[in-house]
Amino acid sequence: MARAWHLKSRPKGMPTSDNFQLKPVDLLPLDYGMVRVANRWLSVDPYMRGRMNDVKSYVPPFAIDAPMEGGAIGEVVESKADGFSPGDRVLHMAGWRDEAVLPAAALNPLPNLGVEPQAFLGNLGLTGGTAYFGLLDAAQAKEGDIVFVSAAAGAVGSAVVQIAKANGMTVIGSAGGAEKCDFVRSLGADEVIDYRARPLVKSLAAAAPKGIDVYFDNVGGDHLDAALAHARNNARFAICGMIDGYNAAEPTPLRYIMRIIAARVRLQGFIYTDYLPRLGEFYGDMGGWIASGQVKSRDTIVEGLERMPEAFLGLFSGANTGKMLVKV
Amino acid sequence: MARAWHLKSRPKGMPTSDNFQLKPVDLLPLDYGMVRVANRWLSVDPYMRGRMNDVKSYVPPFAIDAPMEGGAIGEVVESKADGFSPGDRVLHMAGWRDEAVLPAAALNPLPNLGVEPQAFLGNLGLTGGTAYFGLLDAAQAKEGDIVFVSAAAGAVGSAVVQIAKANGMTVIGSAGGAEKCDFVRSLGADEVIDYRARPLVKSLAAAAPKGIDVYFDNVGGDHLDAALAHARNNARFAICGMIDGYNAAEPTPLRYIMRIIAARVRLQGFIYTDYLPRLGEFYGDMGGWIASGQVKSRDTIVEGLERMPEAFLGLFSGANTGKMLVKV
Repeated sequence: MARAWHLKSRPKGMPTSDNFQLKPVDLLPLDYGMVRVANRWLSVDPYMRGRMNDVKSYVPPFAIDAPMEGGAIGEVVESKADGFSPGDRVLHMAGWRDEAVLPAAALNPLPNLGVEPQAFLGNLGLTGGTAYFGLLDAAQAKEGDIVFVSAAAGAVGSAVVQIAKANGMTVIGSAGGAEKCDFVRSLGADEVIDYRARPLVKSLAAAAPKGIDVYFDNVGGDHLDAALAHARNNARFAICGMIDGYNAAEPTPLRYIMRIIAARVRLQGFIYTDYLPRLGEFYGDMGGWIASGQVKSRDTIVEGLERMPEAFLGLFSGANTGKMLVKV
Repeated sequence: MARAWHLKSRPKGMPTSDNFQLKPVDLLPLDYGMVRVANRWLSVDPYMRGRMNDVKSYVPPFAIDAPMEGGAIGEVVESKADGFSPGDRVLHMAGWRDEAVLPAAALNPLPNLGVEPQAFLGNLGLTGGTAYFGLLDAAQAKEGDIVFVSAAAGAVGSAVVQIAKANGMTVIGSAGGAEKCDFVRSLGADEVIDYRARPLVKSLAAAAPKGIDVYFDNVGGDHLDAALAHARNNARFAICGMIDGYNAAEPTPLRYIMRIIAARVRLQGFIYTDYLPRLGEFYGDMGGWIASGQVKSRDTIVEGLERMPEAFLGLFSGANTGKMLVKV
């Protein structure tokens, strides 16, 4: 019997394991055009927190008592669809479960880029693509720019650091604690800030005495405020995530928001899925950087479907370095 | 003896008349290349509040016990410079005083556009140019867009409303109180919000049921937050001023800031003076709209150099409809 995590209740503030329930699910019949997939790798991502709220956003909210969804890498075990055979690896959105029957149109065969399949949930998937399009398109970062990245030890942040270095930029990364800071340094960051050590406005002033041209925001709040404080003229901010605010009752006031005017700052929000038509370009560049060793991945792996809520909640307590994955 | 307003002390929060002092000033000698100018019209603008603080910005702070500066229209009374003769009207930055001796390079002869000279402090000057370049360049507003403008009865806002209507946009303006709202409606706004009447998030929802494509921000704070709440996908915000925050001790928290991501909003800060190389384009378009009656001006005039601080302080208490000017 297949099992899936269901949303049991909507969290107020920080979610807990009580918001999730693992239950048997009926699978769709394996009619013509359908494929049965056994999931091997499941993705947990900060954006899923938004889907737990009952508010309109760029993806619809999870429904109460319905199976949750998310990125997954599966293996075809039975197929009644042309072009899919047992053993094929596929990327799809029926995560948070061990098995699914899906129409062929919902399955993406993995391109042959000589990487482990789970890379398509990480540096070649949502997180790497978010880093790539956010940095190079939303923020229009270019060679010579001074780039500040928050949550630089996380899945998206660690990709941003490496893509920026591969493109000749100076990179300042922030992370929490000595171990993560060491990891960010190992990725090639020129300066690393431990945001727990002292106020960000001060540490960013020391790390970027000339200011910053680009800020890649995964965090919001104090990080965004410090970036505004140190923005050079015509700085460009890619607004990717605000993990600080996802579970907070009160938004952090931005003391330096008026710097948007004085420094002519541009803040640009963006969503990875808007760039799916440009996936070929991304696979080409990112595949090349992975092959050359300029972009490496470090995954934090939690084993077992049963532990998936724990993996998800760990995203908000800093449990992951690099991409957080669940191995089924 | 010429007199000029001096900065006596720096305000904490809202300025008061005690921060200003009117004192005699020595004029520069009328050497070769110099021009003596009697000021006729003096400009007070919200951005001057920033210059009263001792912080680095896009213009240097006013110095304590030194004459203040600002836009002015004067009449040449004596000239030792080629190209300037008594009776010529000139635009210059030696405002906050009745008379000045200036090098010819500091004087801009008024182009012949068939308007009153004080228009070059308003719709054909800093305020109109700010509206024009902010709306059409920073926010990239185009025909068919739904545009929200805060402080729509003010100097910049009233120009934004009219430029937007002249370019086929739908316009929602906010202002404080029935009289100002009537004025905004008379400018052609499709919907008018009295921000004092009820919470902006609700009144903007009613005025713009489909959301907004463009927000022209003169105010910041709750207005910016409401605009974020109702931003349509790919909305563009021109961040021109945040008058709400100029005198505030605590910044207003933005409850809807994460909408930047979901709606892929772009916020673009801008400064009028960056566009001075494109002044010809502006004079051409704006001159045409003024001639055709599509853009009108309403000035709030305070008479007498002695009352200049009162005129300036009135900008922050809503004393002006349209452009606030001091007549010397």
